[in-house]
Amino acid sequence: MAKQQDKFKQVIAHAKEYGYIFSSSEIYDGLSAVYDYGQNGAELKKNIKDYWWKSMVQLHDNIVGLDAAILMHPTTWKASGHVDAFNDPLIDNKDSKKRYRADVLVEDYAEKINQKAEKEIAKARKRFGDAFNEEEFVTTNPRVLKYKEQQKEILERLAKSLTEENLADVKSLIEELGIACPESGSKNWTDVKQFNLMFGTKLGASADSATDLYLRPETAQGIFVNFANVQKTGRMKIPFGIAQIGKAFRNEIVARQFIFRQREFEQMEMQFFVRPGEELTWFEKWKETRQQWHASLGLGEENYRFHDHEKLAHYANAATDIEFNFPFGFKELEGIHSRTDFDLKAHEEHSGKKLQFFDPEMNKNYVPYVVETSIGLDRMFLAVFSSSLQEEELEGGTTRTVLKLPAILAPYKAAILPLVKKDGLPEIAKQIVDDLKWDFNITYDEKDAVGRRYRRQDAAGTPFCITVDHDTKEDQTVTVRNRDTMEQKRVSISELKSLIQKEVDFKTWMDK
Amino acid sequence: MAKQQDKFKQVIAHAKEYGYIFSSSEIYDGLSAVYDYGQNGAELKKNIKDYWWKSMVQLHDNIVGLDAAILMHPTTWKASGHVDAFNDPLIDNKDSKKRYRADVLVEDYAEKINQKAEKEIAKARKRFGDAFNEEEFVTTNPRVLKYKEQQKEILERLAKSLTEENLADVKSLIEELGIACPESGSKNWTDVKQFNLMFGTKLGASADSATDLYLRPETAQGIFVNFANVQKTGRMKIPFGIAQIGKAFRNEIVARQFIFRQREFEQMEMQFFVRPGEELTWFEKWKETRQQWHASLGLGEENYRFHDHEKLAHYANAATDIEFNFPFGFKELEGIHSRTDFDLKAHEEHSGKKLQFFDPEMNKNYVPYVVETSIGLDRMFLAVFSSSLQEEELEGGTTRTVLKLPAILAPYKAAILPLVKKDGLPEIAKQIVDDLKWDFNITYDEKDAVGRRYRRQDAAGTPFCITVDHDTKEDQTVTVRNRDTMEQKRVSISELKSLIQKEVDFKTWMDK
Repeated sequence: MAKQQDKFKQVIAHAKEYGYIFSSSEIYDGLSAVYDYGQNGAELKKNIKDYWWKSMVQLHDNIVGLDAAILMHPTTWKASGHVDAFNDPLIDNKDSKKRYRADVLVEDYAEKINQKAEKEIAKARKRFGDAFNEEEFVTTNPRVLKYKEQQKEILERLAKSLTEENLADVKSLIEELGIACPESGSKNWTDVKQFNLMFGTKLGASADSATDLYLRPETAQGIFVNFANVQKTGRMKIPFGIAQIGKAFRNEIVARQFIFRQREFEQMEMQFFVRPGEELTWFEKWKETRQQWHASLGLGEENYRFHDHEKLAHYANAATDIEFNFPFGFKELEGIHSRTDFDLKAHEEHSGKKLQFFDPEMNKNYVPYVVETSIGLDRMFLAVFSSSLQEEELEGGTTRTVLKLPAILAPYKAAILPLVKKDGLPEIAKQIVDDLKWDFNITYDEKDAVGRRYRRQDAAGTPFCITVDHDTKEDQTVTVRNRDTMEQKRVSISELKSLIQKEVDFKTWMDK
Repeated sequence: MAKQQDKFKQVIAHAKEYGYIFSSSEIYDGLSAVYDYGQNGAELKKNIKDYWWKSMVQLHDNIVGLDAAILMHPTTWKASGHVDAFNDPLIDNKDSKKRYRADVLVEDYAEKINQKAEKEIAKARKRFGDAFNEEEFVTTNPRVLKYKEQQKEILERLAKSLTEENLADVKSLIEELGIACPESGSKNWTDVKQFNLMFGTKLGASADSATDLYLRPETAQGIFVNFANVQKTGRMKIPFGIAQIGKAFRNEIVARQFIFRQREFEQMEMQFFVRPGEELTWFEKWKETRQQWHASLGLGEENYRFHDHEKLAHYANAATDIEFNFPFGFKELEGIHSRTDFDLKAHEEHSGKKLQFFDPEMNKNYVPYVVETSIGLDRMFLAVFSSSLQEEELEGGTTRTVLKLPAILAPYKAAILPLVKKDGLPEIAKQIVDDLKWDFNITYDEKDAVGRRYRRQDAAGTPFCITVDHDTKEDQTVTVRNRDTMEQKRVSISELKSLIQKEVDFKTWMDK
């Protein structure tokens, strides 16, 4: 656990130091749970978007894109259920006036009990060394067993109360456990109330005529309301998909874990419209396709796991999370959901417009079923970034920090380095930049000794360092150093373009 | 004028019919002044973004990107002046309860007077034919002259009142002119009041502790607050630039002209940081560079004009608009502004943090001056789309509608068409799609006669139609038809990739 926390801290610090992620408005001490992508982060994020877009849209002749606005007609959110049911249970402490998520208060309390058990386990592990059997220890040690059972009981009761929307019982639970306000220590609580997570705003100036709008809490509805327009103008035939990348907003009360859960975030979603009854076949197909997409990037199979939902949302008849091993453990990275015809039907009812497809083979109209793949762009960024960040022990006992980003996603594909800042080497290096910049994002660095520059580019994630030295003037060759292997080889300047191209070729990556 | 309006209507209708632009939430009768980009629009918009990003970031080794959040710390907007001074003058009619922009009411009134003059001019032009001299006619016809002078007087008084922030005089002007509410005909007006154009929202759930936030009204401030972070972590040396593409929001009361003035819109901005005193040299350089960028796309030199600002914003010491000939006349497409050190200094004052650069050559610290290039992405989209849409008379008296998008921006680079839906031709066509799709966005179309498919692809803006026929089976050649010239040539399948590549090569376009 301590090691995990260290790793997480290192990720956050490295993301700032190398221009990947800054706190939003940091000079004003930041805006909670909102982040800005710096000069390298903007490129990495863009490259992830492009990789997703190309593979989801360009490679499929039955999937097209869409770019719907963040602001939508408010009835959209009535139809989707968000106005009535997109809530978090909140509780106020009457003394401190602080507000908390009631479920999180309980979860934190349960986790504290669990930590007591974990502490005992850790002590025992230390004592017994390799001979230690955790499962046996837990089941035979009465104190540890009690902690574990207490934790389980609390979480089960919480889950039951929330499922039944029994908020009074959530409050009872808080009182029975004697949970105090972390700020004031007071146990003087209000009732638990539901709070809607959508950010509201007003369109128009007049108090009378202003329209209440919401910042969209998900991008999916932008696709559903445009279903008929895209299907007709694009002459799309079932099965077909509509893909979209865009921002969404959630007024989270407890936002934690860096860019993993932000109030402003970005989704990459594809809604695939199919014949009713064929949705589960497509659900399986998309699970597989998305798994292959992740595998193609080579972040490590062991970092992924599938988690099928046992309890399904009201609109779904099948759902899976693709979970990733983040620095704080396995958490949802992408969701694949069989959403049935819930959304299109709801929009039919609320708009009075038909959202159907005439299927020429079946010779009838129907509301299509929907299979969705929805991945958090910021989460994918964190997955790529955190799993790429490594401390390596080198020969001679030194270490290096290296960011082993997949080359196709790296902000800069190569750094061009003149060995020294004289003898015409910078001029040759800059000429190489000018030759390559049309095809790749290239950086130039002439400051400090070349070894230090290598380390800097390793830490920034640049796959190749290309060094111009005095021999270059003689034979038009340069040294190409590989970030991951640190191997160096001598290459002719004229071969550089195809050498880099080979490493960032889209087809080669997708076929991996 | 009528012809312009027809053209504008045709642009809007064509944008919908071919999946470029839909009204937002159209099934709910739309959301005023907000639009969604459809399947082709999403690709065109993405391609414009990429063209801008590559030319502004990738081609300049002293410009880096940024992707800052829409939500920012609210003090940002205090420092930038938006909280206090980003207003429109509004007036309410007491009878109809309708709210209007006071300046627009006056402008519309002045335009009506002008229309009387224009009507007389049009009649005279018809009467005199080629011999008509408009200037002479206006100056010698007392009635027309009076209309023109009235219009000028009204607009000058309005401008003076607004500059002096004399809202009482704006109201007097409305009363003196006898302007009535367009809805009710009533002249019963409230006072004129300033209304802030920022969309507000609240962060956090508790009424006590909620923070008032704004949706950013411009992307520039996201760059300024990140100046020090990017400069330090990116080791940037003056002069250098930070570029960003992102959404901004303005609660416009009068939003017109399709995607030209939207409440939610997207900007492509670059802030270039320079030594104090060198800003006007850079201002001229960026005017030239941006002009070349526009010229490279070949939308027609005659469609552009520069408009230097005579009156400068409080933060600027030089400013130019690049205006484009939209279907409703010449309007601002891009602004190039010398913003001095106004913004960085304001953020220094409000944050207490130093936003300076240590210049090793000058051996001193200073707050850099800023030259900004700021282009509306939606406006650029409209410029590209509307100037590309053409009705062509063909031999034989027929016409065709063709969307002559620059090939590098076109959503699909080629359409692959089997001549008939049998004899194995669809299979060969699909094999070509599979070969080309890794490098280009390609579409496949097998429905209707091939002539109709050509027309459809012309109207959708696809530069090449590649037709597979029975000869293809024999000799592995296909017919490549050029959208603009309608010329057809026979080409080997193996040459297709390089043929398309040549037409969409970034360097070739930028060097134009």
